[in-house]
Amino acid sequence: MPDQPRFELYAYWRTSATYRVRVALNLKGLAAQERFVNVDAGENRGEAFLKINPLGGVPTLVEAGFPPLTQSAAILEYLEEIAPNPPLLPSDPHGRARVRSLAAMLATDTHPLITPRIKRYLMEHGFDDAAWRAWQIQWFSTGLRAVEQRLASESQTGRFCHGDTVTMADIVLMSIIVVVRVFKIEVAGTPTVNRIAALCEAQEAFAKADPMRQEGAPQP
Amino acid sequence: MPDQPRFELYAYWRTSATYRVRVALNLKGLAAQERFVNVDAGENRGEAFLKINPLGGVPTLVEAGFPPLTQSAAILEYLEEIAPNPPLLPSDPHGRARVRSLAAMLATDTHPLITPRIKRYLMEHGFDDAAWRAWQIQWFSTGLRAVEQRLASESQTGRFCHGDTVTMADIVLMSIIVVVRVFKIEVAGTPTVNRIAALCEAQEAFAKADPMRQEGAPQP
Repeated sequence: MPDQPRFELYAYWRTSATYRVRVALNLKGLAAQERFVNVDAGENRGEAFLKINPLGGVPTLVEAGFPPLTQSAAILEYLEEIAPNPPLLPSDPHGRARVRSLAAMLATDTHPLITPRIKRYLMEHGFDDAAWRAWQIQWFSTGLRAVEQRLASESQTGRFCHGDTVTMADIVLMSIIVVVRVFKIEVAGTPTVNRIAALCEAQEAFAKADPMRQEGAPQP
Repeated sequence: MPDQPRFELYAYWRTSATYRVRVALNLKGLAAQERFVNVDAGENRGEAFLKINPLGGVPTLVEAGFPPLTQSAAILEYLEEIAPNPPLLPSDPHGRARVRSLAAMLATDTHPLITPRIKRYLMEHGFDDAAWRAWQIQWFSTGLRAVEQRLASESQTGRFCHGDTVTMADIVLMSIIVVVRVFKIEVAGTPTVNRIAALCEAQEAFAKADPMRQEGAPQP
């Protein structure tokens, strides 16, 4: 009989931040029972989920006996600390800083701009569907092109964003790529990003985390 | 004769992310020569600065012989690794995850919404000054109240955000408080935040990083 999974991951099929945690768990071989929270239907604001995470955010990673873990960047660092292999950060401090910086360009500077609460606010304050779509395209493009500029010009870029193994930077990059695809947005002029994305997708840890393969995703 | 500072910090007086790095350097006793980049005048997009950081972002931390370090969260983690004392993260992985999560609630979920490029875009797409101010108030209030809810209810909160010593969570919290003040915004209903802010401000490492005490700040 298989062991009880160590973690429960409260998740929504589409969210970029949930995808990051899913990939990291897969890469490190950590078992997690995923619990579907229908964010579009407001379940993350429902009584049952607020008992687990009073702030209503997904992803929330629950480990029996401990407070729930929130915020994808904090969860990735946590998983790296408790399960160091395979490493998702390089071993030298400057390399680690570069990986975290690349990840933050998308997880901090880009993704928070494109979340449901921002959409709700803008739609209530003068945006229509076309204006929202232009907003999405603006920030996804800005973020991905800035990362492209660094990846294409910095010598530490290898087969992946940093050297020849997967790091947190690749995980966050892919978390944006898969969401851009869900929204059917094309960002031109990012050949290095595209090359790395193809390599990541060929790995089972990434492929099986894809939003379209999760509970709740629209049927093709 | 004092040693040449190890770092140059390219900085702008008002930016929240620069403040975080300034405080961490102060707390760890690391010397840095601050270089003023007038973001409001577009100097971060000028040829001279783009040679240092091709993406034009501040803060940028430069250490001779290494690529420039960018993104405040990555820089704080870097400083923690090269100068572990005093620690800005607790020693246990769950505690570290909590501190990073609290920090991300403001550095990731809140601050990127209130940056000059977002203002520029919204003002070009239908916002006026009043709409921009309502937007600022909305996201600063949402972020600070969410942090208040956690600080007030979670047992790990101590004199500071996590236990009785300063962590990255306090640094990021204060980086939002000082900017909220620059914009003369009042967020009500955050007594725990206010209590911790008062303690931080009493420390010289925070006080001397205050935006109003930096080169380029408006005269009182």
